[in-house]
Amino acid sequence: MILETIASPKDIKKLNYKQLGQLCSEIRACLITTVSKTGGHLASNLGTVELTVALHKVFSSPTDQIVWDVGHQSYTHKLLTGRRQQFDTLRQEGGLSGFPKQSESVHDAFIAGHSGNSISAGLGLLTGKDLKGEKGSVVAVIGDGSFTNGMAYEGLNNAGRSNQRMIIVLNDNEMSISQNVGALAKYLAKIRSTTSYFKLKDFTQDTLLKIPVVGEGVVDMVSSSKKAVKQMLYHSNLFEDFGYVYLGPVDGHNLESLCEVFTRAKELQRPVVVHVETKKGKGYKHAERNPSKYHGVSTFDIATGTMKSSKEKSFSQVFGDKLTQLARQDSKICAVTAAMQHGTGLSPFYQEFGHKGRYFDVGIAESHGITFSAGLAAKGLLPVFAVYSTFLQRGYDQVLHDCSIESKHLVLAVDRAGIVGDDGETHQGLFDVAFLSTIPGISIYSPATLAELELCLEQALYQEKGVVAVRYPRGGEPSLPERWKEPSAFYSYYPGEAKDTLLITYGRIFGEVCKAVSLLKESGKEVSLLKLTKVHPIDEKLLKIAMEYSGVYFVEEGIKNGSVAQQFGSLLLENGFQGSYTIRAVDNCFVPQATVQRAFAHLGFDAGSIKKMVVGE
Amino acid sequence: MILETIASPKDIKKLNYKQLGQLCSEIRACLITTVSKTGGHLASNLGTVELTVALHKVFSSPTDQIVWDVGHQSYTHKLLTGRRQQFDTLRQEGGLSGFPKQSESVHDAFIAGHSGNSISAGLGLLTGKDLKGEKGSVVAVIGDGSFTNGMAYEGLNNAGRSNQRMIIVLNDNEMSISQNVGALAKYLAKIRSTTSYFKLKDFTQDTLLKIPVVGEGVVDMVSSSKKAVKQMLYHSNLFEDFGYVYLGPVDGHNLESLCEVFTRAKELQRPVVVHVETKKGKGYKHAERNPSKYHGVSTFDIATGTMKSSKEKSFSQVFGDKLTQLARQDSKICAVTAAMQHGTGLSPFYQEFGHKGRYFDVGIAESHGITFSAGLAAKGLLPVFAVYSTFLQRGYDQVLHDCSIESKHLVLAVDRAGIVGDDGETHQGLFDVAFLSTIPGISIYSPATLAELELCLEQALYQEKGVVAVRYPRGGEPSLPERWKEPSAFYSYYPGEAKDTLLITYGRIFGEVCKAVSLLKESGKEVSLLKLTKVHPIDEKLLKIAMEYSGVYFVEEGIKNGSVAQQFGSLLLENGFQGSYTIRAVDNCFVPQATVQRAFAHLGFDAGSIKKMVVGE
Repeated sequence: MILETIASPKDIKKLNYKQLGQLCSEIRACLITTVSKTGGHLASNLGTVELTVALHKVFSSPTDQIVWDVGHQSYTHKLLTGRRQQFDTLRQEGGLSGFPKQSESVHDAFIAGHSGNSISAGLGLLTGKDLKGEKGSVVAVIGDGSFTNGMAYEGLNNAGRSNQRMIIVLNDNEMSISQNVGALAKYLAKIRSTTSYFKLKDFTQDTLLKIPVVGEGVVDMVSSSKKAVKQMLYHSNLFEDFGYVYLGPVDGHNLESLCEVFTRAKELQRPVVVHVETKKGKGYKHAERNPSKYHGVSTFDIATGTMKSSKEKSFSQVFGDKLTQLARQDSKICAVTAAMQHGTGLSPFYQEFGHKGRYFDVGIAESHGITFSAGLAAKGLLPVFAVYSTFLQRGYDQVLHDCSIESKHLVLAVDRAGIVGDDGETHQGLFDVAFLSTIPGISIYSPATLAELELCLEQALYQEKGVVAVRYPRGGEPSLPERWKEPSAFYSYYPGEAKDTLLITYGRIFGEVCKAVSLLKESGKEVSLLKLTKVHPIDEKLLKIAMEYSGVYFVEEGIKNGSVAQQFGSLLLENGFQGSYTIRAVDNCFVPQATVQRAFAHLGFDAGSIKKMVVGE
Repeated sequence: MILETIASPKDIKKLNYKQLGQLCSEIRACLITTVSKTGGHLASNLGTVELTVALHKVFSSPTDQIVWDVGHQSYTHKLLTGRRQQFDTLRQEGGLSGFPKQSESVHDAFIAGHSGNSISAGLGLLTGKDLKGEKGSVVAVIGDGSFTNGMAYEGLNNAGRSNQRMIIVLNDNEMSISQNVGALAKYLAKIRSTTSYFKLKDFTQDTLLKIPVVGEGVVDMVSSSKKAVKQMLYHSNLFEDFGYVYLGPVDGHNLESLCEVFTRAKELQRPVVVHVETKKGKGYKHAERNPSKYHGVSTFDIATGTMKSSKEKSFSQVFGDKLTQLARQDSKICAVTAAMQHGTGLSPFYQEFGHKGRYFDVGIAESHGITFSAGLAAKGLLPVFAVYSTFLQRGYDQVLHDCSIESKHLVLAVDRAGIVGDDGETHQGLFDVAFLSTIPGISIYSPATLAELELCLEQALYQEKGVVAVRYPRGGEPSLPERWKEPSAFYSYYPGEAKDTLLITYGRIFGEVCKAVSLLKESGKEVSLLKLTKVHPIDEKLLKIAMEYSGVYFVEEGIKNGSVAQQFGSLLLENGFQGSYTIRAVDNCFVPQATVQRAFAHLGFDAGSIKKMVVGE
């Protein structure tokens, strides 16, 4: 095993191409075996094995710094940078993160998780190097999917004019998570289909850049005398328009080509885009055939590719089905997603209404998605933007400025709200309630069950004005005692006999609170229960209920600062409440990867901890 | 006066070019006269007179919809769409907004204020039209400055592939508010300097598109047989790479050319970019000479161009001066701005450190600016990102994800925090404390005086970890009684004799609270005063102080949901406080344009209202 001999990226430098090829095979086997057991991102990592090996062959991390965009593709990098032996702890509590983390390794140059930040971060690192007089390159590795994101463009625009030696590796697999979309995607397809042209150009540029005084000056001098040639050869590519030397397209599974092109990029000492074509899922037939399906996987059987799928219905599925059903009766309903058709459950909607122009995948462009929806709303349509809680953070200003000031009526279907589990800090949906509720006029629903989600969605579409968020967790509904299952779009109040203790909560964690109530009852303490479904703005009725109690406990699966619990507490005090008040929420910290149940236990969200809080243990 | 005869855009259609020219002169005179009295955006509006007149000549608003990006340039549009007679109420309480507003006129297709939303909103409107079977074009008018913003790119990418009849007018004046920056700006300059080339191309495209079966198919068929020609003529422009027909550049002050190119754009019925060259400040010599200075102006003398400048030192100036001074002693300090060198007071820093590579104007790219700063921080530098509160909303996710999860130490210098006055809803800095304080590990300072700002800046740079925000208002410091002027970076506690009433506040509004305390004293009520400077996280000492009182009042110049006041209230209750608690903040509403003092009065923030709140009137 060559892989076993790689203790650090230095060890790669000694290997010849044959050995590197062998290494790539071993890495693929390791990726498939490990991810089949841990779950994680499979197809994107299989597509970047050679790319990563070649980067480490040519560059010297950590002197040279590699910034991975999103980080879906950093597993090979982890295997090669001293983390092979912990690799089977991937995405598990206390184990390796599924994303790059500076705190995990000196070879992880910057955090990743959200799309499009790599060029900006990389340019910051490179500028920092320069100001401190440090040597070394900075390489941002970014997929064509991330290039649909505005932040990638802002980075491209700034790095291009900087004239610094920023290297951007465009990992072009024609996919984001699903099929990639947008004008740029079409454009990249055009580049790929005109390879011969780019070979010619490469040669010309190469020649120019071999003239001793390398750089723009010379190129310009030569070009200005041959304007037509310049237009054709030098200014015909949008990356070149932005000030980059463009190298590519290159076969992303050919180690020699990759090493050659990276070496050239390194030598140029100016902004370079290396356009690499890769195949998502490469080397595992099931993933090659269906890269979307194998983008993010649960555990699976290697031989058959069969994933252990949970049989429970998820909130995402119910959302997608219900929206599709409503859309049959109401032609005003449109659905918008930012590259998350499958994840947000919109596939049935797409099947039925895609060809009718009522379904929009805008690419990884949450900001655009929101304002585009506001435009639809301004024409009297009923847009529903389905988005993960963590990615909605990219659209805070758009919800505030473009949607709320002039009260556009649209629905934000906020998926993956709350603890998400294995993806860790970068993906937790713990902030949406807090940041959305700062926005005037917004309404927020947080159903606890699938039936409530259906109710809330109708409520949001037809009974509300302005922006309405309906938020719900990853996965399925909590199991609840029969007597507490009745859905409500507002609140459910279950008074106990004594009027001393009231537990308030909302959303999925209602399941834990129910269990806590049972535990309390078993130990002789009867408590009342108030479950909110519409969590914002806070209804006066809810305050009146709480005012009757001498002890109120609020359990919230979200960040404490700005929480409903805090708003509720302050309102209680403003209304003269004099009892005791206790909040259990995520208090000023990020929540690392662990299963949802384990994270609950750490945060004191499990039934046992909630019981303890109430009895004062 | 022709202008007086224009009651609606229809009236423009009857005019010939000579009359239109006359109309433009009258509009310019009206703009200069009005803005010299009201203040407002001058140079950008003077630059777009012909452009706007030509748009209304060719298109028929409101059937055709014009979406103005940012809205700095919409005054002529307002004059031509039935608002001439209210034009002298511009930016005044109850008067016309300085920005487009759907609530103000059916001719204002979408709200504007923040950069880069026009293509996204326009595409939403156009798609809505199509789904409803409505006729009409949608035109997004967007400056080259806004094109440095990622959201504009997301819109460009989506509208380009849509194949819909989206018309983008690129108003290219080589400026954002200051000189425009970035690779795209360089690229546009190149296009402008190669006019002959584009004439040739225009002609060719024109010919192609006159073939009966108009559209991509034909163009592709013709092109594929002549690959080299296609490369040179058709695929050499980045807008064309994105699927647009590119028309331009066009002289933006030539009405005939403008009308001709807009007519052509309208006929094409597919995505078009019209590249218009304008001169910011056109027709007013002072503004032509110094367009940055006359971008946003206070009242001024028309003959001399002299602006009535306030002599008081502003927070922005003190920030810029102090940062420059600190940077002399510490080479790690860098400054970053998103196209707001003057506004944020960074000009002295630029003068002194620009050529040393420690100053960065990233264009209107707040998201990039933050993550770029995080990259600098990762290399051990001390970046300070100076940004207006309202525009920082664009970077919520970047502060959370890119800066805070791995605790990058950088300073956000948040200018225009609080009520901004004349710019109204779209520009109020009322949300920063609420949305920033949801982010784990962040610290927030809100100095009340200039001396405190200096103190806070040093504190933020050298005594804190992670992300630190220092926020301060537009304009100068409030006048304070001598005994309450002593600066503190944490808090200042002024106990009264009785322990019944405590007033808590922070920031500029401390001035009003001081006056209220004096008023209360005059009327025989002695109260204690607690002024916070570090407002987040809330220190236990502050809670201890408040716990001693039976009545606590918190006055906060910010949104109530998620406010420090609310966090404080909840913490008091959690700590067993049983007194009364009252919050005076901006409660679930947007704040329309008015002078700061008048807005204070409306919101109950003036000394008299605060006094009344305390005495219970």
